[in-house]
Amino acid sequence: MHPLDPLTGAEIVAASALIKDANPPNSVHFKNIALLEPAKSEMRKYLAAERANAATLAAFPKPARRVSALYYRRGTADLYYATINLDTSIVESIAKMDPIYHGQVDMIEATAVRDACLNDPRVKERIQQYGLPDDMVPVCDTWPYGRDSADPVRRLAQYKSHEGSNAYDNPLPFSPIIDYTTRKVLYIVDLPLGADQKTDPNAKFTRHTRGEWHHDLQAQPKRTDLKPLTVHQPEGASFRVIDNHLVTWQKWRFRVGYNWREGMVLHDVTYDGRELFHRLSLSEMFVPYGDPRTPYSRKSVFDVGDIGAGAAANNLALGCDCLGLIKYFSFAISDANGNVIEKPNAVCMHEIDDGIGWKHTDSSTQQVSIVRNRKLVLQTIITVGNYEYIFMWHLDQAAALHYRIQATGILSTVPIAPAGPDGPSVTVPWGTVVNDGVLAPHHQHVFSLRIDPALDGDRNTVVEEDSVPLPFDEEHNPDGIGYITQQRVVGRSGPLGQAPNRVLKIINRGKRNRITGKPVGYAIHSGGPRQMLLAHPLSWHGRRAKYALQPFWVTKYRDGELYAAGNYTYQSLPEDMVTGITQGTSGPAVPGDLASWAGRGDKIEDEDVVLWHSISLTHNPRPEDYPVMPVETMTVSLKPSGFFECNPALDVPQSTQCANRSVLYEDYEAVKKLPPPLVETKEVSKGSCCSDAKL
Amino acid sequence: MHPLDPLTGAEIVAASALIKDANPPNSVHFKNIALLEPAKSEMRKYLAAERANAATLAAFPKPARRVSALYYRRGTADLYYATINLDTSIVESIAKMDPIYHGQVDMIEATAVRDACLNDPRVKERIQQYGLPDDMVPVCDTWPYGRDSADPVRRLAQYKSHEGSNAYDNPLPFSPIIDYTTRKVLYIVDLPLGADQKTDPNAKFTRHTRGEWHHDLQAQPKRTDLKPLTVHQPEGASFRVIDNHLVTWQKWRFRVGYNWREGMVLHDVTYDGRELFHRLSLSEMFVPYGDPRTPYSRKSVFDVGDIGAGAAANNLALGCDCLGLIKYFSFAISDANGNVIEKPNAVCMHEIDDGIGWKHTDSSTQQVSIVRNRKLVLQTIITVGNYEYIFMWHLDQAAALHYRIQATGILSTVPIAPAGPDGPSVTVPWGTVVNDGVLAPHHQHVFSLRIDPALDGDRNTVVEEDSVPLPFDEEHNPDGIGYITQQRVVGRSGPLGQAPNRVLKIINRGKRNRITGKPVGYAIHSGGPRQMLLAHPLSWHGRRAKYALQPFWVTKYRDGELYAAGNYTYQSLPEDMVTGITQGTSGPAVPGDLASWAGRGDKIEDEDVVLWHSISLTHNPRPEDYPVMPVETMTVSLKPSGFFECNPALDVPQSTQCANRSVLYEDYEAVKKLPPPLVETKEVSKGSCCSDAKL
Repeated sequence: MHPLDPLTGAEIVAASALIKDANPPNSVHFKNIALLEPAKSEMRKYLAAERANAATLAAFPKPARRVSALYYRRGTADLYYATINLDTSIVESIAKMDPIYHGQVDMIEATAVRDACLNDPRVKERIQQYGLPDDMVPVCDTWPYGRDSADPVRRLAQYKSHEGSNAYDNPLPFSPIIDYTTRKVLYIVDLPLGADQKTDPNAKFTRHTRGEWHHDLQAQPKRTDLKPLTVHQPEGASFRVIDNHLVTWQKWRFRVGYNWREGMVLHDVTYDGRELFHRLSLSEMFVPYGDPRTPYSRKSVFDVGDIGAGAAANNLALGCDCLGLIKYFSFAISDANGNVIEKPNAVCMHEIDDGIGWKHTDSSTQQVSIVRNRKLVLQTIITVGNYEYIFMWHLDQAAALHYRIQATGILSTVPIAPAGPDGPSVTVPWGTVVNDGVLAPHHQHVFSLRIDPALDGDRNTVVEEDSVPLPFDEEHNPDGIGYITQQRVVGRSGPLGQAPNRVLKIINRGKRNRITGKPVGYAIHSGGPRQMLLAHPLSWHGRRAKYALQPFWVTKYRDGELYAAGNYTYQSLPEDMVTGITQGTSGPAVPGDLASWAGRGDKIEDEDVVLWHSISLTHNPRPEDYPVMPVETMTVSLKPSGFFECNPALDVPQSTQCANRSVLYEDYEAVKKLPPPLVETKEVSKGSCCSDAKL
Repeated sequence: MHPLDPLTGAEIVAASALIKDANPPNSVHFKNIALLEPAKSEMRKYLAAERANAATLAAFPKPARRVSALYYRRGTADLYYATINLDTSIVESIAKMDPIYHGQVDMIEATAVRDACLNDPRVKERIQQYGLPDDMVPVCDTWPYGRDSADPVRRLAQYKSHEGSNAYDNPLPFSPIIDYTTRKVLYIVDLPLGADQKTDPNAKFTRHTRGEWHHDLQAQPKRTDLKPLTVHQPEGASFRVIDNHLVTWQKWRFRVGYNWREGMVLHDVTYDGRELFHRLSLSEMFVPYGDPRTPYSRKSVFDVGDIGAGAAANNLALGCDCLGLIKYFSFAISDANGNVIEKPNAVCMHEIDDGIGWKHTDSSTQQVSIVRNRKLVLQTIITVGNYEYIFMWHLDQAAALHYRIQATGILSTVPIAPAGPDGPSVTVPWGTVVNDGVLAPHHQHVFSLRIDPALDGDRNTVVEEDSVPLPFDEEHNPDGIGYITQQRVVGRSGPLGQAPNRVLKIINRGKRNRITGKPVGYAIHSGGPRQMLLAHPLSWHGRRAKYALQPFWVTKYRDGELYAAGNYTYQSLPEDMVTGITQGTSGPAVPGDLASWAGRGDKIEDEDVVLWHSISLTHNPRPEDYPVMPVETMTVSLKPSGFFECNPALDVPQSTQCANRSVLYEDYEAVKKLPPPLVETKEVSKGSCCSDAKL
């Protein structure tokens, strides 16, 4: 068991038992049980010893195995935070949280409030009044309440009642507000149906041609001309998995971590024995909507802090999500009763061929050298209500890492006045009509990628490197074509901007590249500048998700500063408004958010720095995104920049036909089939995937 | 034979014979023989008739098959442009070009001048003086002279003499200037070796550790842990190729074109029978260097106009460049003697799996629908001296096209003072030292993608769509989170800017989307704003490559306006300086460049418009790019935006294990091997590729 290994089911049960023992019987409603990673100073030494050799590691004191537990007293709004030492089976501390803090959503309570909602007499009456036909079943789509004032609020959920199958295709024109603690409907909000705030409590259901995403409900027949494409590794995979979570591949070495909140985490990433990154994680994501009408102006969610990327992860085997020779990683998280929820196959790993790696032909001699671009993929997919997000790390043979995010799933929809004979009867500038009576509002997705570097050691520096044109100068630049690169060292923590001529680099000034004479480093390549948060900085969205206002932030490392919007995002009060903690209660173990940590203005030259990259996608829906959207892809690349003396992939073997076994189109007779692979696929073939083998 | 089919070898020979007959014997030095595509007005009707049915097409008059020929009178600087009707075997016209115009480089003359250079006594003496050891062989790296004044100049080439194998690893400190017409060395330029203009004619050769790119010359042993990865299509490919150049795949239909200059061209692209794009091509590319010192301030090349992307294309079979079930397209171009140069396998086509296409899981029912992202790839690779460029089109099942450009090959190098004991003795702000005594200067690559749309017809409009935040407003935006999209119609031809909140769209205002009520269209997604040309707009670089100053241009279509920097790029005079044509000579058939065509200010609403996208990469070399660089990738996506009523990929069959045949890592025993494929690979297995089967 490595100190960074994810919690096992047995550990979760042991921790929850200790918490239950410390509380009245049946009184504990768990929100989460999570690994408390050891202090970084201790971990860096441990990891270095581990990579050195077994003897050195054996001599090193193993960090204590500690976890945290967040829980409610059942039926109350009393939230508690406890820390536990699993080695000694001791509950170290229990603190009652100040009432401004709320725990995230869990599935048991979400299901309970949905049932409460649908059984509420006022809700049933409203549905009746709306005239929903008998062949349609209302369902609930759960959203955090968000925030629209500075008043302390009870934990609430809001529901837009939807019909079954593609529920999003028939949004009902009202939204019940529910109290999570009492599980009672507080009141029902009528939703506007036009271009302004006007509501119509007498709006009636009207049928329209259904937009179905489910493959069994499609009106159109499936394409019949798609031939299979399979990926084979006839001599096995190039990667190795050791002790469940340690991976080596093509000079890379790293540990796979996982928790309910961040989902997949990469620890202790090294290349060819050199330290690169201590920890890489999705620290938060925020999805605010741009529809200004009440109540939509509250509509936003922190899918990591409010729900949990680990909790929401798909089981990838059943979904047939990965192609080739696949390694699956499975995990365990806690449910509301402190029992184990298995997350089987939450992360998959496999190799891909991504075209050519490098090539050159010497024109005079016709000598050719060429290698292919083999990559290692780690992938996880989360479902958060209507949306899916795919998070991937791609590692390549030239020592670069690429973080890839894809959005798919279903647009969030709201009702709008039904269409007329010539098309929509109402259009709005903040959304797109995607079906009759169905509006998909504009929104953004802003992800925070947390990069904790350790480039050849822990003392790193962040620099901005700009390409700057030289002025015409008779002596130095007579033809006016010169340009130079200029670096600005980022001396203090804070936000950083973006520009088309700017590249951000992390460097180690204590380590020089022998060839260039300059410090070794890695560069962050993220495309050109993106549109950041469009909501006003002083709006609740802007104040609760300050990280989304700027594309980059740099902080000086402190233990526990992991989540860009703070520890408790559910209906959070902006950090700058937390003026005091009620007597007898506690705040978060680590208070603040990214903006406040960066706002300390710590000196960060040659220090243990953390770089946070806010990756923003402005999503103005198109009808092609409905009823389920083709993947939209964002990529951030971390590429060596003077870290090595030459191309790290020079020693990749040549691409040859003998290995590649490509086949000429003209040589192929369409009816020939290959025999099935020699290896039976056991676990992967279980499940519903094969019953739909229409190919 | 389709009017847009590339020229065949027989046609090239026929055309050159006609030209030779019209000139004194052995006097013709051909520069190029190219298809003159019929007038667009005629082609649109022909293509529509062709897509309609065979009877309609049979009734349609076939356009004349016409070609152009550009040639010199041998041993002179007299350049001629002729047009030929191949149907009637008649030379329609021959025009003598004004001396300001030059033809591009061709391989025969490039080889001849290299030989002339290396045999020149002054060059030999200089090499001797430099002290190049006997085990090293000087070679020539040919560059266009470029421009550094307004004076008319003879056609010249400049050489940086290099040593063999990785010649770029030992750049010699002088550059002979050669006259292409006389093939004589005019003079030799000494190259600066420090951070300023100072040269040192007494500089001596010093040995350093070699930086070799060739796989047989690597000091380091190859990686031994890379296991094979193969792609199979056991039931054949999903695409069909009809009559050599017409391709259908997953509702796509298009023609593959090819010529010496643009390389691969896509014609008449339709999806599900709807017209999308009339013509897609690489209209130019420009690679200017940012080193301000003489003579490097001239250093730049138009790889399309000066050399030809078609002429420089690799034979893809020998290089093992493509993986899977491959269709190769072969072409023919002319050599300097009017004979045929075969370009076998210049374009490859195959399918790839690019992960997930779309997915949704209904959390309450656990119903899952998922399809994979199958793409069709068309790929060509060009070698232009030191650099390789890979140009690809990726077509997907959601009706999007993705243009992908990758740069690889070898950085262009210049000499610098040798290193000292602690690293480089000289560093400069406009380049990177990549080996002892070897500097790789900063440079840019600016590509022009020419997009000739025909979205549901020829009358299209370009719009800029911005995401704009709404101000706080008690009535309309009380929470300050609202944002809207606003469109500006581009009324007149000209350049267009870029911004993080802006998306460019091409729409057809005569065709409304029934669901949204808005015009159908396609959007251009090209990442955030890129750094455009850093050279001063009034420099020779800026004036010769005006297209590189702005990211987008829109023009009203005119036949022959195809190349962003004009027809004759070699040592071109900026278009705005072409004040007159010498009496008795001609200018280009279609004068001007993109800036002048856009500068007409034509009305372009609901017109036949052309969109030109300047894709700029600022390349400040890193040591990891040397001695051969890992691919650097740029992508531009053309995605439907309200063109369809829903996701076009809804009817793609589900991704299933039965079809995908993934294998579990744990199930695989490393020693098992699959039998070889049933189908012998005949042509593809020929060549040197298999002798290096080290995997």
